[in-house]
Amino acid sequence: MIELRSYVCGSWSAGTGARQTLVNPATEAPLASASSEGVDLGAALQYAREKGGPALRALGFAGRGALLRAIADAMQSSRDELINLGIANGGNTRSDAKFDVDGAIGTLLAYAELAPTLGEARMLTDGEGIQLGRSPRFHGQHVLTPRRGVAVHVNAFNFPAWGFAEKAAVALLAGMPVLSKPATSSAMVAHRIAELIVEGKILPDGALQLLVGRPRDLIEHLGAQDVLAFTGSGDTGELIRAMPNIIKHSVRVNIEADSLNAAVLGPDVEPRSDMYELFLKEVVRDMTQKAGQKCTAIRRVIVHGGVAEEVRNDLAELLAVVKVGDPAEEETKMGPLATASQLADAREGVQRLGGKLAFGSAAPVGSKGFFLSPILVEGPGAVVHEREVFGPIASLIAYKEDPARIVASGNGGLVCSIYSEDQEFLDATVAEVAPFHGRIYLGHPKVELSPGPGTVLPQLVHGGPGRAGGGEELGGPRGLAFYLQRTALEGSRPVIAKITGAKQP
Amino acid sequence: MIELRSYVCGSWSAGTGARQTLVNPATEAPLASASSEGVDLGAALQYAREKGGPALRALGFAGRGALLRAIADAMQSSRDELINLGIANGGNTRSDAKFDVDGAIGTLLAYAELAPTLGEARMLTDGEGIQLGRSPRFHGQHVLTPRRGVAVHVNAFNFPAWGFAEKAAVALLAGMPVLSKPATSSAMVAHRIAELIVEGKILPDGALQLLVGRPRDLIEHLGAQDVLAFTGSGDTGELIRAMPNIIKHSVRVNIEADSLNAAVLGPDVEPRSDMYELFLKEVVRDMTQKAGQKCTAIRRVIVHGGVAEEVRNDLAELLAVVKVGDPAEEETKMGPLATASQLADAREGVQRLGGKLAFGSAAPVGSKGFFLSPILVEGPGAVVHEREVFGPIASLIAYKEDPARIVASGNGGLVCSIYSEDQEFLDATVAEVAPFHGRIYLGHPKVELSPGPGTVLPQLVHGGPGRAGGGEELGGPRGLAFYLQRTALEGSRPVIAKITGAKQP
Repeated sequence: MIELRSYVCGSWSAGTGARQTLVNPATEAPLASASSEGVDLGAALQYAREKGGPALRALGFAGRGALLRAIADAMQSSRDELINLGIANGGNTRSDAKFDVDGAIGTLLAYAELAPTLGEARMLTDGEGIQLGRSPRFHGQHVLTPRRGVAVHVNAFNFPAWGFAEKAAVALLAGMPVLSKPATSSAMVAHRIAELIVEGKILPDGALQLLVGRPRDLIEHLGAQDVLAFTGSGDTGELIRAMPNIIKHSVRVNIEADSLNAAVLGPDVEPRSDMYELFLKEVVRDMTQKAGQKCTAIRRVIVHGGVAEEVRNDLAELLAVVKVGDPAEEETKMGPLATASQLADAREGVQRLGGKLAFGSAAPVGSKGFFLSPILVEGPGAVVHEREVFGPIASLIAYKEDPARIVASGNGGLVCSIYSEDQEFLDATVAEVAPFHGRIYLGHPKVELSPGPGTVLPQLVHGGPGRAGGGEELGGPRGLAFYLQRTALEGSRPVIAKITGAKQP
Repeated sequence: MIELRSYVCGSWSAGTGARQTLVNPATEAPLASASSEGVDLGAALQYAREKGGPALRALGFAGRGALLRAIADAMQSSRDELINLGIANGGNTRSDAKFDVDGAIGTLLAYAELAPTLGEARMLTDGEGIQLGRSPRFHGQHVLTPRRGVAVHVNAFNFPAWGFAEKAAVALLAGMPVLSKPATSSAMVAHRIAELIVEGKILPDGALQLLVGRPRDLIEHLGAQDVLAFTGSGDTGELIRAMPNIIKHSVRVNIEADSLNAAVLGPDVEPRSDMYELFLKEVVRDMTQKAGQKCTAIRRVIVHGGVAEEVRNDLAELLAVVKVGDPAEEETKMGPLATASQLADAREGVQRLGGKLAFGSAAPVGSKGFFLSPILVEGPGAVVHEREVFGPIASLIAYKEDPARIVASGNGGLVCSIYSEDQEFLDATVAEVAPFHGRIYLGHPKVELSPGPGTVLPQLVHGGPGRAGGGEELGGPRGLAFYLQRTALEGSRPVIAKITGAKQP
């Protein structure tokens, strides 16, 4: 059994005391253990601020972009190893594990490519200069500088590679040192990535630390120049937001929490049309990929009453051929849930949804492992707009005329997908649902190799208002803003031009 | 005595029960009374969401910009009346009251002028379109749409006109209805502005509501599509952030709180130079304008040890000629503090600062009114970096070589001003203090009619990290983002172009 270690203050520490056990969710075989007891987290944060921050800031954007490329290269070189860890420790099928690892590498490379476009000035300018007085001499210029603290990243269990990389890429490029805490249950992938980075001496000292095991007092040490990005449950997000030091020091917090992502089938879409088939395919993919354990997965399938029965039958038919089993076996199309508690939570959630099971059942599958069949709920109760059931579960909801109102009753989400070729319907629905979402995916059968609504792209923002936590990550250069302080410089134009390193006017 | 009323759900309501009394802070004469008891605040918010929001959104940016201009015009027409209310109810000198009213009008006009530049599309685009796939067909475009809730504005007592206008201008232009709650003690100016808007039928029904008196359960009704912008003490800001519904629904909150604004005199600046004289003038202005009751006022005067004595003597000399008295009298240069509790708080704060009084005293001035002399503290204790004493009080701090470190120990502020002509010193100091501030003002004697660091400009962001609340207002178009939801549209390029109303590619 592997003893996972945290990497803090420039060295590896296995921790002390009782250890948590990480298992293979398909077989329940123990794989590794973790403990963060005895790790001085206050010292780790201070190490990041004193060592990692200055070293990263000295590199500039292009230099930091090169670091991201080196991390991506190291991951690429060990891609098979990382994928196998995802299969063993995450219950991922090979396809699921590739999705995670390749998503991580792609995001690192996207930010590496962004780096050279940010210039080599000592601070990033934000917008054009502004004439403030009657003469051009009195001048304003907004600039962005890296915060002087540490970026703490608390990641969810479902994407140990991608979750790590999508947060770290942006923070490191912005110039902030990172302390990353993967979810313990699936930490083996992130742990191996950290080992690759440390072994390869890719990053400056203090630029990246890894905490494996319980977070303990980590968040209590955060101050006004630190930031915290959290992905996980809404309940934990609320606990974080309520912490006295987070409130007192206005610590910047980005939370990506629950989301009842909806897929809306337009009233114009005829069964058997290309749009209809795309819709079916993407619903099934979202229900079964990663056993439905994606924050962006479709939870609410919202279709016109006139086609609801047909959609139900078609989805049931497609779900019936999804082979659930140990992802170590090649023919498996959907693996187990990640942990026993996730399984219990999903089963309880299905009961709570009410309605009728149009496909699948919440009964246990097999005697070992955290397996559940895909489940399609028909006509759920109102709780479907409140409770995210995190597993291979979606609910079918029929509308008469106002699907946007049904979507909005989810009270804020990460992504809404709309499948229609009726421009008027699209215009109206997008306008209505946009204020409630961070992303709207417009299904289009002619878009080549569409990744579907469940895939987070580094170029587009990821996050959502309300229930989804109110946060925003990625979005190309937009993601950097979380790690940077915006400051308006006000004064004489030539003086400001010299400070920002801009060309003299 | 005037009975102030709240304007909610389309009508005026004087409230019931016990009333708070508003006084003239120079004479303590009662001027008006206020009560919010019996006002149904949940209904008021719902009214804004159902009536005001749709009406504002239907107008588009240019239409809403025209509304701002109409508000500015109405205020301009009643400018003398508003100024006189500020003098009577705010303890403002005529110059102070003009600063408030003209600041309000200027900010409304600045956003009115911004409006036509935002275009007439049904949603605002954010950045360029993004090619997401190998072919240009798979496309991304970020858009901004108005949130579907209500913008609640809780303002501080010191700028009843400007505070109202700077928040309302941005929210209304963004397309969100406003419920504005002025601080009760100085509410007469904001109350009169609301009357002018209602009497002139300037805004659509529900677009602006006014709450006079205690906020009661106002904030408890806020949900995921609402936003709250608060200006006031850090303590109240913390209470707001900790409220369960604010946390649960990820309600967007902007807090502008305490700030220990520093003015740094560079080691190169010789006494009697133009830069030195500008520095003295701006320190004295910030200490005495509005009796030092500006969130942006200089609290920490940080000068090289070699000139500290000279600066102290020069400031004392300039402060000695500032005539403190009833602002109704023309020769008065500085009025009283706004309330008895502000006076008590300021006097206690001076005691807490420790050090030596280089000018003034915390003893009562006269037997009526909330007067205090300007006070310059020399060599204060470390509490100077923690406690904002909100009155005509500044502390003189001598540095040997690293003023930026002293500035940063304030742990986040609204504005830092730097007076130097040594470009190397400016480069280094700006780079060090920028992450801790929302604005850096560079003193320059050749900049015509410099407003000094204490003036908030609509074109530049106003807010600051850490102690200052972590918020950001204004900044030209940047301010709109708080009231808008950013959404990534992902799909076929021509479909997205039609939705956003952009020209077809």
